[in-house]
Amino acid sequence: MAETRVAYIEKNQEKFIRELSEWLAIPSISALGEHDEDVYAASEWVRNKLVFLGFSEVRTIPTNGHPLIYTEWMVDEQQPTVLIYGHYDVQPVDPVSDWDTPPFEPQVRDGNIYGRGTSDDKGQIMVVIGALEAWLKTEGKLPVNVKILLEGEEESGGAGIERFVERNPELLKADAVLICDTHMVSETQPSLVQGLRGILYTEIAVSGARTDLHSGSYGGVAPNPIHALCVLISRLKGEDGVINIPELHEALGRPAAEEKAFWDADPLNIAESLKDEMGVDALVGEEDYPPLERLGVRPTLEVHGIRGGFTGEGAKTVIPARALAKVSMRLPAELDPYEVFGWFEKAVQKNLPAGHEATAVNMHSGRGVSVKAENPFFKAATDSLAETYQNRPVLMREGGSIPIAALFDSVLQAPIILMGFGLPDDGAHAANEKFSLTQLRLGMLTVADYLQRIRR
Amino acid sequence: MAETRVAYIEKNQEKFIRELSEWLAIPSISALGEHDEDVYAASEWVRNKLVFLGFSEVRTIPTNGHPLIYTEWMVDEQQPTVLIYGHYDVQPVDPVSDWDTPPFEPQVRDGNIYGRGTSDDKGQIMVVIGALEAWLKTEGKLPVNVKILLEGEEESGGAGIERFVERNPELLKADAVLICDTHMVSETQPSLVQGLRGILYTEIAVSGARTDLHSGSYGGVAPNPIHALCVLISRLKGEDGVINIPELHEALGRPAAEEKAFWDADPLNIAESLKDEMGVDALVGEEDYPPLERLGVRPTLEVHGIRGGFTGEGAKTVIPARALAKVSMRLPAELDPYEVFGWFEKAVQKNLPAGHEATAVNMHSGRGVSVKAENPFFKAATDSLAETYQNRPVLMREGGSIPIAALFDSVLQAPIILMGFGLPDDGAHAANEKFSLTQLRLGMLTVADYLQRIRR
Repeated sequence: MAETRVAYIEKNQEKFIRELSEWLAIPSISALGEHDEDVYAASEWVRNKLVFLGFSEVRTIPTNGHPLIYTEWMVDEQQPTVLIYGHYDVQPVDPVSDWDTPPFEPQVRDGNIYGRGTSDDKGQIMVVIGALEAWLKTEGKLPVNVKILLEGEEESGGAGIERFVERNPELLKADAVLICDTHMVSETQPSLVQGLRGILYTEIAVSGARTDLHSGSYGGVAPNPIHALCVLISRLKGEDGVINIPELHEALGRPAAEEKAFWDADPLNIAESLKDEMGVDALVGEEDYPPLERLGVRPTLEVHGIRGGFTGEGAKTVIPARALAKVSMRLPAELDPYEVFGWFEKAVQKNLPAGHEATAVNMHSGRGVSVKAENPFFKAATDSLAETYQNRPVLMREGGSIPIAALFDSVLQAPIILMGFGLPDDGAHAANEKFSLTQLRLGMLTVADYLQRIRR
Repeated sequence: MAETRVAYIEKNQEKFIRELSEWLAIPSISALGEHDEDVYAASEWVRNKLVFLGFSEVRTIPTNGHPLIYTEWMVDEQQPTVLIYGHYDVQPVDPVSDWDTPPFEPQVRDGNIYGRGTSDDKGQIMVVIGALEAWLKTEGKLPVNVKILLEGEEESGGAGIERFVERNPELLKADAVLICDTHMVSETQPSLVQGLRGILYTEIAVSGARTDLHSGSYGGVAPNPIHALCVLISRLKGEDGVINIPELHEALGRPAAEEKAFWDADPLNIAESLKDEMGVDALVGEEDYPPLERLGVRPTLEVHGIRGGFTGEGAKTVIPARALAKVSMRLPAELDPYEVFGWFEKAVQKNLPAGHEATAVNMHSGRGVSVKAENPFFKAATDSLAETYQNRPVLMREGGSIPIAALFDSVLQAPIILMGFGLPDDGAHAANEKFSLTQLRLGMLTVADYLQRIRR
């Protein structure tokens, strides 16, 4: 990499942090209707930033939900085209009381920037923007053709971008897709993601009697939807972590021997790091599978929220008429979430205690992806990371889901490069989310190098 | 009963309803701190009403919580003394959206008065007040000695009255205790309560990792307190309704053969009525016991509320650091709730899935009571009900708990007369609570008759 690009990135870190902070201060929580204007404001912020960088036509593309931002800079048809994806929306922040500093008042401390969206994903989009800016400010141009597609619904289903990608394969045509929205093993051990699980996010509602009842008058004979929901959930997945959906286990593929050996050996001792990050003495889950396999490729079933009856201060002896839970499943790439939802619905009905009714709704879902590693774009990513970090990246599974990655894979038929700069302890969906400033800087250096490296 | 008392009660129904409505409009929710002033205002309302009736010294007795109202009218030491108990506090009202009309804007329709506290217990205190007023306005005096003790914490633990009763046995000394805070079988089938279960109200909190986690990054190996709580609850009581606390079953007494025969036969077909009231096709619970036994005397374990993680609009893939549930047990009179809590705590720890921690807190508890029927005060109640309703009352178990009844029983050693005028479909702790205006009127006639009947 030319000295000037490196120098530009190094000397402008404070400026980038300042700009990122401005963006982070916009509470673009896509899942909550009351933040619709904030989500729009966050899209405007990044649109203006891209215009300022010199992109000539930055479009705000309306969807049924939050808008997409799209732009492209075609420099030379002999050069490859890389499509860069990111999302400017963020997760909800409750309970706010768990945050040490307000989620939308970003703060730098101990070498990190804290705030909602720092790691997931505004900070990582800033990594790409910094790399592009370094090229443009020092060379006056980009080394390859760049298309940028940013969405505002990643944390709430992403229906808008799905339709757009399906309908615009020509516009989005690219030789590779670069996604900076994952994490690496550590600040000294870079990694690339070789597989992402899909996701199925459901809401289960259980009902019993016509109205809330007094437990003194009806306890012992009345249906109790909270209790039924607890029994149901305990049957869908037991303490042993085994998911009680027979069709699921029949449909699961077998991992490659090499990958299985890596999970069994855990040479980076990731299982221990996980315990430290979570502050626990032991990992839970299916004991027949090593932690790395449970984490990266086994299907999961997790309850994210549950609500029913009286949960205020004090005591109320009510038997509520209904209760609900939000339950997701992470799915290996070979499974179709829509098909799995059918099995899930069947399991809900089958395992529901008598005297109650339940509905399960598929709130959103997206297929997983297996990354192809045998291509120059993946190799270049490996080399850029090795150069910046002075350490060869390892290939990892990421347990999380980026539904749009699977769609890029099937619609664009181009390699998906999941080169993320988050760290395992960033707390992407939790309180006190942070992004390492070292990773911000090294990320920019890596992406700037990558754009050079994929040039023909 | 002299014609004049009957006439007074009959002709003043609208006035009584107007006064009751005024009292009901005060949102005296004792469990919620923000209603402290309302609870006090409701105590003042009834204090003023008693003063207006002619009680000469009506005391507001402070406690650590909400005040007690106490007064007495000693007419003749040759006559028996009846202690009348009631509570002027009410249950919370959420979710308010389930109410057809606002809970604190009482409304008369279809022969009922609707609003929080109509049946439990302001409306039933009004029954007693109406009877006392009829005596005082027509005879200028009461036929027997009357003591009145009203509390404002029945729905939130009743700690204040417990201490007061324990410390003042001489002041409260009475030949019988009259409590109008239960219900009867129907408007045509009066009943008296021959036993009340005790209650143990607990809060279980489960914790897992140090902070909330992203399910994509940790799902499969992370503790999930919501899931653990569901598994725990499903183990404490299964779909079969059997409570998994071995010590409890060892300690349970055996019901009398006569009562058991009544439950088995269910001659009033109460099981069918229960289904109608709840709007369900089938009753749930322990199939080895008939519904009436499950309802009235078997121990229960009910979840009243559960909360954890993200339950807002949309989707959030969080694994929360903690979850909590409010769980109560109703206990037959032979069991000591404090002892049962010890067994409960042990069962919580024993059944908690590995990798999680749990605490159980005894939020409040009160022992049940077995009513003694072989005494003139119980017999008089039977006769008064038979006279007013022109139908002999049946003896019923009430599944609910009035912890103070057990204390009166042990401290005062006087018969407890549980003569309530609620109906099974009043929805005492639910939305759209109501009290039958027929029951208000017949209740006043019955109590007025009762005061005459216990006169020596």
